[in-house]
Amino acid sequence: MSASVRAAARAMRAVVVREFGGPEVLKVEEVAVPQAEGKQVLIKVSAVGVNPVETYIRSGTHNIKPPLPWTPGCDVAGVVEEVGKEATKFQKGDRVFTRGSVTGAYAEFTVAEEDTTFRLADRLSFQQGAAIGVPYMTAYRALFHRTHGKPGETVLVHGASGGVGLAAVQLAKAHGMVVMGTAGSSEGMELVKKNGAAHVFNHREEGYMDKIMAATAGVGVDLIIEMLANVNLEKDLELLARHGRVGVVGNRGPTQINARAAMTKETSIIGVMLYHMDATELGETVAALYAGFTQGTLNPVVGREYSLEQAPEAHKDIIETKSAMGKVVLTV
Amino acid sequence: MSASVRAAARAMRAVVVREFGGPEVLKVEEVAVPQAEGKQVLIKVSAVGVNPVETYIRSGTHNIKPPLPWTPGCDVAGVVEEVGKEATKFQKGDRVFTRGSVTGAYAEFTVAEEDTTFRLADRLSFQQGAAIGVPYMTAYRALFHRTHGKPGETVLVHGASGGVGLAAVQLAKAHGMVVMGTAGSSEGMELVKKNGAAHVFNHREEGYMDKIMAATAGVGVDLIIEMLANVNLEKDLELLARHGRVGVVGNRGPTQINARAAMTKETSIIGVMLYHMDATELGETVAALYAGFTQGTLNPVVGREYSLEQAPEAHKDIIETKSAMGKVVLTV
Repeated sequence: MSASVRAAARAMRAVVVREFGGPEVLKVEEVAVPQAEGKQVLIKVSAVGVNPVETYIRSGTHNIKPPLPWTPGCDVAGVVEEVGKEATKFQKGDRVFTRGSVTGAYAEFTVAEEDTTFRLADRLSFQQGAAIGVPYMTAYRALFHRTHGKPGETVLVHGASGGVGLAAVQLAKAHGMVVMGTAGSSEGMELVKKNGAAHVFNHREEGYMDKIMAATAGVGVDLIIEMLANVNLEKDLELLARHGRVGVVGNRGPTQINARAAMTKETSIIGVMLYHMDATELGETVAALYAGFTQGTLNPVVGREYSLEQAPEAHKDIIETKSAMGKVVLTV
Repeated sequence: MSASVRAAARAMRAVVVREFGGPEVLKVEEVAVPQAEGKQVLIKVSAVGVNPVETYIRSGTHNIKPPLPWTPGCDVAGVVEEVGKEATKFQKGDRVFTRGSVTGAYAEFTVAEEDTTFRLADRLSFQQGAAIGVPYMTAYRALFHRTHGKPGETVLVHGASGGVGLAAVQLAKAHGMVVMGTAGSSEGMELVKKNGAAHVFNHREEGYMDKIMAATAGVGVDLIIEMLANVNLEKDLELLARHGRVGVVGNRGPTQINARAAMTKETSIIGVMLYHMDATELGETVAALYAGFTQGTLNPVVGREYSLEQAPEAHKDIIETKSAMGKVVLTV
């Protein structure tokens, strides 16, 4: 009996969405363990990263609409259980994380392409590993591939206490940038400060933008990594210094701007989407992140943990919470 | 009697604004011919370029408010009449254009720094020389310094029949880009086509954006040089291809956008303002333009001509006309 036949014969628990809708459509079912084909690996999942995009897709209103039934998620960390016949990068037992689950991440096992699966630094837990894929890669892409952040520049992480935000704070600090961050609560502010921000502001406080401007002595900030452009973009343009850039990582609706503000200081609004990272950029990103994880400058912050059965609560948490506190994960 | 004393003793006609307001505040007076000091040159003006920004400043609502009385304008072409004691770049009689009039351009004589004054290519008329400064330098900055246009890319010049627009069409075509342009009349469209656009569209026609999209086989355009962001920006984001850029050259008010459009295709909105061009960039720009002017790929298009006394009509023309037809100049 071959390994793949044995694996196929086994059952596992997985979240299965059979209709788009609210968080309640995330239901755990018993399904067959998927098989690694070709250059794929089968990962025994220890922890799953929950990302905002999965809530948008689940609702059925996103431009990505996967065929149903659908198991959400792309980020997991765990141990390699089996490898496909053409796979050469890993062996059974390797600790890994992936940003590219093929069969869905909210499950006890997942299949991923070996090209988008990477060794997990020894000093990181599986929960931390589940916080790498989308958050750190998106933050890296926003800071370096898209807005070209440089040592010595000032960066405002606008919404800094969530998964992408804390990753951006750590990456920018490690790069030699002067980091400012915002959060929606004093606990969130504390967390952002602890992770390397020189200045922290409460974005629920009236007039906090004036304080940011004052912290730059009126010059403005060079970079903004923006998690909620529909609320902040117009003001961001006022906060930027000459030749400043806003990297738009998150947005939930239309917004008004005055393009003259972008002209006057020759600033830029730059869209960021991890999906567009090509193979060369991915190789660079993974190498940079591994250096930070092994040398201690990058430390994924795990926030609230949920079980697979609690996936609906995790989805409510990531969208509705007033102040993110690190990465929301499912511990399997 | 020194040259400067003789010059000072002479009188000239100049437009003098004594209060901010409508076009009627542009009045011709007799004033003293200004003197070239230090590294400045005195230019006997043959033609003056009229730029939209001068109408904004004249109205008193612009963030730049010069002290009154004020003579508008920065672009002239003419002949060097005198040079300051430390000036070494030009001699009396040289044909030049400047983008940096110090004493005001709407006049029979103007003083300019020699660093922002340049030799006029023999094959260009003075009227053409007056169309270089702001229009060609802005178009060059938008296409190359700010949006990094590359040979083989498609560019839409959104508002292509005015001074900056036609300069952008010629520069992009000379660079090996595939050029599309819009105008507001059939004469304007004809002019844009004649200057090198492969496809021309009427931006007053319902559904013209669909036609642009169709002309790219649904892929979208790589670059947009935008003259009226407040009207077009939201739609521009839909017209862009993956990793496309909008260079914002003109804008007259607030506008709504959905930043998600910028995320989905990782596109950028990039402000352009000639004022921020530094000395190195200016040197590059002037060399590139001179190559085009002498080798025949760049040919400034002179539109309607007015006298100094007709400056009010020229200001109405550049703002109110339904379809620009090349550069508006004052012929002195």
